[in-house]
Amino acid sequence: MSKGPSRRSFLRGAAAGTAFVAGAAKAGTPDPLITEVQPWASGLGDGVDATPYGLPIEYEADVIRRNVEWLTADTISSINFTPIHALDGTITPQGCAFERHHSGAIDLRKEDYRLMINGLVDRPLVFTYADLERFPRENHVYFCECAANTGMEWAGAQLNGAQFTHGMIHNMEYTGVPLRTILQEAGLAAAGDLSDKWVFVEGADASSNGRSIPMEKALDDVLVAFKANGEALRKEHGYPVRLVVPGWEGNMWVKWIRRIEVMDGPVESREETSKYTDTLADGTSRKWTWEMDAKSVVTSPSPQAPITHGKGPLVITGLAWSGRGAITRVDVSTDGGKNWQTARLAKPGEKMALTRFYLDIDWGGEEMFLQSRAMDETGYVQPTKAQLREVRGLNSIYHNNCIQTWWVRPSGEAENVEVS
Amino acid sequence: MSKGPSRRSFLRGAAAGTAFVAGAAKAGTPDPLITEVQPWASGLGDGVDATPYGLPIEYEADVIRRNVEWLTADTISSINFTPIHALDGTITPQGCAFERHHSGAIDLRKEDYRLMINGLVDRPLVFTYADLERFPRENHVYFCECAANTGMEWAGAQLNGAQFTHGMIHNMEYTGVPLRTILQEAGLAAAGDLSDKWVFVEGADASSNGRSIPMEKALDDVLVAFKANGEALRKEHGYPVRLVVPGWEGNMWVKWIRRIEVMDGPVESREETSKYTDTLADGTSRKWTWEMDAKSVVTSPSPQAPITHGKGPLVITGLAWSGRGAITRVDVSTDGGKNWQTARLAKPGEKMALTRFYLDIDWGGEEMFLQSRAMDETGYVQPTKAQLREVRGLNSIYHNNCIQTWWVRPSGEAENVEVS
Repeated sequence: MSKGPSRRSFLRGAAAGTAFVAGAAKAGTPDPLITEVQPWASGLGDGVDATPYGLPIEYEADVIRRNVEWLTADTISSINFTPIHALDGTITPQGCAFERHHSGAIDLRKEDYRLMINGLVDRPLVFTYADLERFPRENHVYFCECAANTGMEWAGAQLNGAQFTHGMIHNMEYTGVPLRTILQEAGLAAAGDLSDKWVFVEGADASSNGRSIPMEKALDDVLVAFKANGEALRKEHGYPVRLVVPGWEGNMWVKWIRRIEVMDGPVESREETSKYTDTLADGTSRKWTWEMDAKSVVTSPSPQAPITHGKGPLVITGLAWSGRGAITRVDVSTDGGKNWQTARLAKPGEKMALTRFYLDIDWGGEEMFLQSRAMDETGYVQPTKAQLREVRGLNSIYHNNCIQTWWVRPSGEAENVEVS
Repeated sequence: MSKGPSRRSFLRGAAAGTAFVAGAAKAGTPDPLITEVQPWASGLGDGVDATPYGLPIEYEADVIRRNVEWLTADTISSINFTPIHALDGTITPQGCAFERHHSGAIDLRKEDYRLMINGLVDRPLVFTYADLERFPRENHVYFCECAANTGMEWAGAQLNGAQFTHGMIHNMEYTGVPLRTILQEAGLAAAGDLSDKWVFVEGADASSNGRSIPMEKALDDVLVAFKANGEALRKEHGYPVRLVVPGWEGNMWVKWIRRIEVMDGPVESREETSKYTDTLADGTSRKWTWEMDAKSVVTSPSPQAPITHGKGPLVITGLAWSGRGAITRVDVSTDGGKNWQTARLAKPGEKMALTRFYLDIDWGGEEMFLQSRAMDETGYVQPTKAQLREVRGLNSIYHNNCIQTWWVRPSGEAENVEVS
């Protein structure tokens, strides 16, 4: 637990906010919510049989996944966005965790589930769901980020809200079996030298969304997962079984995984050639850009989460993550990157998981150009948009991990902007 | 990450299970799920606009909170149970996390929310919801256990399922403001020597459910929380604001918290005298038994989660927790406590949070008397039911943290039993 600002400095902040102490500010005006007995304090509420499986209260109806109509030709091969501007902490509830489908979210019962392991293995195997439950399990919290997250920002500040610029991400506690265990069950002696071998993984949906993964990663931390945040995967996240590929782009986290083939090279499938490669300024494309580089974003205040309380104490908060390990530090700037303050991490960073950061300031009501800058345990520092464009050009779609800027006006409203 | 069983021993286990390798077992019978193109692999699934806020897939419809009709006179002042037998990992999804209400789950909008701080403070204050959002926040994962969890077991092995014997518990990542911060904002100089002061906390529902908390705890780790697992608290868990009292009995985690009064002694309210005290064998009652002692339970196999795959590799799993700190070790017995094996903890134990344990065994198909025994960082060891009865008698309802026994038959079915 890192230390917050000292008590003394916080109280100074509070005292500076004229309308901050609600009780004091309203001392002369009786508040019926205090002075009168309210209906919820005199009647009975819902019983324990009201919602066997509950949903958020109606007043939170705006905390939902949203899609952007112009982004894709239809909603089947499309994406929606996690409402990160309205969340706090690090866990993403399944109900509002983003979805990306290539041929829609399929309906696959556990009884109909099969996982084939074939190719260069000693004995090809087919597992049922019940078989998978018999292997030793692990639990890990990991973020899953679509390679296209923030992709619309290559062309400028296009979408007005953290949900849309950075919401192709979620963070869950997965339970599953290491892929290593499954591969060893099939036997890898037939594959010979493993250092140049790959696995090809594909899903049971019509797109099959096949991807090649180097054997080194497959034997490291990849999970064949069947639970997220304690319960079964949701339909839209690959029920009953998906691949979890920690730190690597979401497209490789194959949902409804049906087949894993051990091969002597990559397949160079559509999903890793014409898609999910990075076209550079000279027209050539980088491939095998699997890791998601260190990145961060201020989630509040932000365009969908403006400041509504005026000047005085203000909580600036956001998320940071790295596909290469743990986040070690996040800095926040309120002046577009000229000056930086080190934010407080809610917990020490964990490998390939979201880290929540806070900066508690005394806002004077002036405009701000809010930015955050993440650092990870490899020493990598999140780049500016200009630095990223210098290296990558303007042709890219994927892997945009640049520093984001929100222009916060004196009114408290915020807007997605670029600073030079 | 603790180490699992060695690869070698696991493969021996797998080889011993005749029907374990599904592919091998079905080699002679073509499986249409493998040989034929299935509808989900040729058609389109749901689009990304199908569920702005998603629910579990229909096939998981049995993973729900359940109440026990005979337990309470009505469902308003009642309790339901988390389906822990069907969950894995440690996070409890809000949707199926147990509820306990004294006058029902009330409907309280953020705009109508007020929190009063009064009593021995320098300046009594009333906070709106928006005010609370301006204080520095913290994130912590904590379990919340009702003091009555496992309470029906004092009289014998009464309820057939881990959901019912141990399901008055959930574990979430909370975001909130330390109560300490709120109290310091009101100023504690007026209270003088804090070592003998208390706070009295009450909720906005009709029951008000008032409880006294010693100042030492109030200034330590208590949170005024408004988010759980990243999103707003659910209505049934105290929306918009509840108290989080780490490690202490759930009744003190006041929902819809409306008032916190600094006092020079405890109130000795109904909820801490005629309720939530432990009547001993001689008829006297223990009070102020706030901490939840170290406890554990095997969640699978269990009566609601029987073994369906026959002998061979079997994952035994469960949960352990302690209100006094981190779980350091869990042992599992398959013979009713004669012999113990140390289970694998999915992650090192964290203070006042659920810890998931696994024991991967090769089951020979014989009957088992399955038990788990938790140890925490204070050196405390979870007692047997006989040991607990010896100290506490048979008059208690609350704070039953005894070792649980499941009798697993050769058929794989399990039953709640007592062993002498």
